[in-house]
Amino acid sequence: MKAVGLVVEYNPFHNGHRYHAEQAKIKTDSSVAAAVMSGPFLQRGEPAAVSKWARTKMALENGVDIVIELPYIYAVQKAELFARGSVSLLHHLGCSSLFFGSENGRIEPFIEASEAFSRKEDDCSLILKEELKKGLSYPAAASKAFSHIFKGRDMLDLSKPNNILGFHYVRAIHTSGSAMKPYTTARIASQYHDAELPGDNSRIASATSIRKALIEKGTAAARSFLPEASARELEAYRNSYGIWHSTEDYFSYVKYSLSTLSAEELSRIYEVEEGLEHRILRTIRQARSYREMMERLKTKRYTWTRLQRMNTHILTRTKKEDMHRLLKPSSAPYIRLLGMTKKGQAYLSAKKKELTAPLVSKLSSFSHPALDLDILAGRVYSLPINEPERTLFEKQEFSQAPIRYDEDEKRFLNA
Amino acid sequence: MKAVGLVVEYNPFHNGHRYHAEQAKIKTDSSVAAAVMSGPFLQRGEPAAVSKWARTKMALENGVDIVIELPYIYAVQKAELFARGSVSLLHHLGCSSLFFGSENGRIEPFIEASEAFSRKEDDCSLILKEELKKGLSYPAAASKAFSHIFKGRDMLDLSKPNNILGFHYVRAIHTSGSAMKPYTTARIASQYHDAELPGDNSRIASATSIRKALIEKGTAAARSFLPEASARELEAYRNSYGIWHSTEDYFSYVKYSLSTLSAEELSRIYEVEEGLEHRILRTIRQARSYREMMERLKTKRYTWTRLQRMNTHILTRTKKEDMHRLLKPSSAPYIRLLGMTKKGQAYLSAKKKELTAPLVSKLSSFSHPALDLDILAGRVYSLPINEPERTLFEKQEFSQAPIRYDEDEKRFLNA
Repeated sequence: MKAVGLVVEYNPFHNGHRYHAEQAKIKTDSSVAAAVMSGPFLQRGEPAAVSKWARTKMALENGVDIVIELPYIYAVQKAELFARGSVSLLHHLGCSSLFFGSENGRIEPFIEASEAFSRKEDDCSLILKEELKKGLSYPAAASKAFSHIFKGRDMLDLSKPNNILGFHYVRAIHTSGSAMKPYTTARIASQYHDAELPGDNSRIASATSIRKALIEKGTAAARSFLPEASARELEAYRNSYGIWHSTEDYFSYVKYSLSTLSAEELSRIYEVEEGLEHRILRTIRQARSYREMMERLKTKRYTWTRLQRMNTHILTRTKKEDMHRLLKPSSAPYIRLLGMTKKGQAYLSAKKKELTAPLVSKLSSFSHPALDLDILAGRVYSLPINEPERTLFEKQEFSQAPIRYDEDEKRFLNA
Repeated sequence: MKAVGLVVEYNPFHNGHRYHAEQAKIKTDSSVAAAVMSGPFLQRGEPAAVSKWARTKMALENGVDIVIELPYIYAVQKAELFARGSVSLLHHLGCSSLFFGSENGRIEPFIEASEAFSRKEDDCSLILKEELKKGLSYPAAASKAFSHIFKGRDMLDLSKPNNILGFHYVRAIHTSGSAMKPYTTARIASQYHDAELPGDNSRIASATSIRKALIEKGTAAARSFLPEASARELEAYRNSYGIWHSTEDYFSYVKYSLSTLSAEELSRIYEVEEGLEHRILRTIRQARSYREMMERLKTKRYTWTRLQRMNTHILTRTKKEDMHRLLKPSSAPYIRLLGMTKKGQAYLSAKKKELTAPLVSKLSSFSHPALDLDILAGRVYSLPINEPERTLFEKQEFSQAPIRYDEDEKRFLNA
C-alpha cells in the first residue's frame, strides 16, 4: 500500500483540489492520498473560512484518504518552515512520495535548484542578508539571491508563490534525508492569486476567487467550482455558527490584545521585528478596521502576509522564545489525525508500527506544548462565533474523534 | 471658599444624587461640591453604563462643581482601598469635609467604630483571619469580627454596604491624619440594592433599580427618577456609541483573555487567589455567558462583586506585583480633573498652590504607571463599541479637556 502526500489548506476544497488528489494517486501510482492540512489559521496568516472538521469532510468525500493537521507552529509561517513541518509530517506517515502543484510544472528544476542551493548556501545566505538590510521583503530578497546564484541557467522562477513552496518542499526532503520522492504538476487554475472567477466554461478556479465570490455573492455564485460536499459543508457551517471566518472578525481582538501589551512585551511576540512594536502600537490607535490597520502597517519591507501572520501571533500571544524552542527539533512532534476513509484507516492500521511520531486521535490522550498552542489557536479562532454556538464549537474542537468516511457507501460513519 | 467632598459613581446620576449634593453643601456650609468618581469600571467590578465624560456632564448640570476621577487602582477594589484612594484625593483637593450617605445616618457611630477599631485592630485582624480561613467571604468575616469586638454597644451595623464604605472613609481620614470632617446622612432610597423602582410618587430610586428599568424598558421608564441632563446624556451616549455598557458585553474578551493565559500566568493576576486559577480555567470552557460563568464561579468564599472585580483585572491583565507596587504609597499620585463649573474653576484657581498632588488636565501632559492603567482601562471599556465609533471614543478619552460648565448660563463651554 503506497501513499502520496499532499500539502493543503482547502480553503475551501474546490474542483482543482479534487483533480489534484486524483492526479497525485495516478502519477505516483499510489492507492492512498494523505493530506497535511493547516488548522484554523493559514500560511498567509488568515483564518480558514470554516473549521478544519468541515474542510476535512469536504476532502474525504473527494478522493483524499487521510487528513492530518499541520500544527500552528508550522502552519502560520513563511514558506521554509511551513514546508519543513509539512514534509516532516508526511514522512512520519510513511508517504513514499510528495505531490505538489507549481507554476513551473516540471520536477527537475526544483531538484536542480535544491542541489545548487546546497552547494551555494553560504553565498546565497550572504546575498539574502544584504538584500534584507536594504529593506527588501523576505520573498523579494530570496528571489534576488537565487537569481544571482543561478543566473544564466534554465532557472526556476522563484518569484512565483507555488514554485517557492515547491522549492522548499524539495529542500526539506533533501535536508531531512527523507526517501520521499517529489513530483509536481502545473496548476490548472491559471494563477493562485486570481481574484476573479474565470468567465469560460471552466469548472476550476483559484481558491482566492472562489472565496471572493462566496463572500460577495453566496454559495450559488461559486457552486460550479465546488464539489457538492464543499457547497454543503460551507452552508452547514454558516447555518450552525453564523459566519465564515475572515480577518475582520478578529479585529477587535487584535486591538484588545495590543491594548494589554506594553512595547516591551509586544517586542517579545513572534514575528514582531525589532523596532516594529512602536509602529504597531501607534497604528492600532488610529485604525478602524483590520484592512486599515494593515494598510497603515505595510511597507516594502513587510509583506501583507508577513504582517497577517504577525497579527495572528499577536492574537495567540505566541512568544519568540516559545516558538524558537518548539521549532528546535528538526521533525514534527506528533501526527494529529483529523479524518480518514476506509482505505485511509486500512493504511494507518498497516503502518501503525512504522509511524515515526505518535498518532494523536484524541486531544485528551496526548500532551505537548505545540499541541497546547493548537488548542489555543482553535479557541482564538472560535471567538467571533456568537454564544451559545461558540461553546459548542469549542467542545467539538476538544472532543471530536477523527472523522471516518466510508467511500464505498458514500457516508460518514461518525459525523 | 469651602469645598465638601463626595465619593460617587453616578451610574447613572439620579435625583437622589442631586439631593445628596445639595444637602452636602447645606449641611457642611460649603459653596463647592467636589466629587471623586470611578472611571470606566466601578467598585462592584462592573463597567459604568456610559462614559465618565457623560456622567461628568450629568453631575455638573446638577449641583456638583468639580468632578475628578478615582484611578483604576482604587476604583476596582474592596471598600477599604476604594475608601483610601477616594479620601486621599479629596484631601489632595483641599476639601474641608466629606459627606456620605449611609444606612445609619448619624456620624457618631462611625467615629466611635473607627476609634474602637484603632484600639482593637490586632484583635479584629486576628478574628478576621480566622473567619476567612473558615471560608467566609471578606465582608461576612469583617462583619463578624466587628460584632465580636463591639458586642453589647450601640453598634454600627457593618453588614450594610454604605455603612461599610462610610466606616472606611472615616478610618481613612483618621489613619491619613487628614483634617477633613466626616458627615453622613441617611440615604433616602430605602436600599442600595433595591431591584425595583418604587411604586409611589417618589422621585428617588436606587441606581440599581434605575439601571434595571433603563435596560429593560428604556429611558422613559426611568425618566421621573432622573434629572433632565441624565436622561439626555444617556440617550445621546447610546445614539453615538450604540450601547449602554454591561458585563455581558465583555464576556468574549474575558474568554479570550483567559484563553491566552496559562494557569501560572493567571495566578499572577490581581485578585486571583491561590488555587482559584484552575477553577477559573475549567469554568470558562463551559460558560456561555458572563452570568453563567459567575454562577459557576461563585461560592460562599467569593462574593459576586469580588469575582466581578477579578474578571475586570483579568480583562485589564493587571498583575499582583504591579498593583501592590502602585498601592504602596499611602496617597493618590495625581488628581485627574474631568470637569468643573465656573465656581469649581474659581475654587481650583484659588487653591492651585495648595493642592498636594499634581492636577492632570490633559493626559499628554503627565505620565505615571497608574495613569497608564487608567488609559488601558478606558481602552478595554471601549471594546464592545462598534467601529468606527470605537476609535472616536478612544480619541475622546485621550484628547478630551476637562468639561467646563457655566452654571449661570446653564450651558457647557467646551462640550
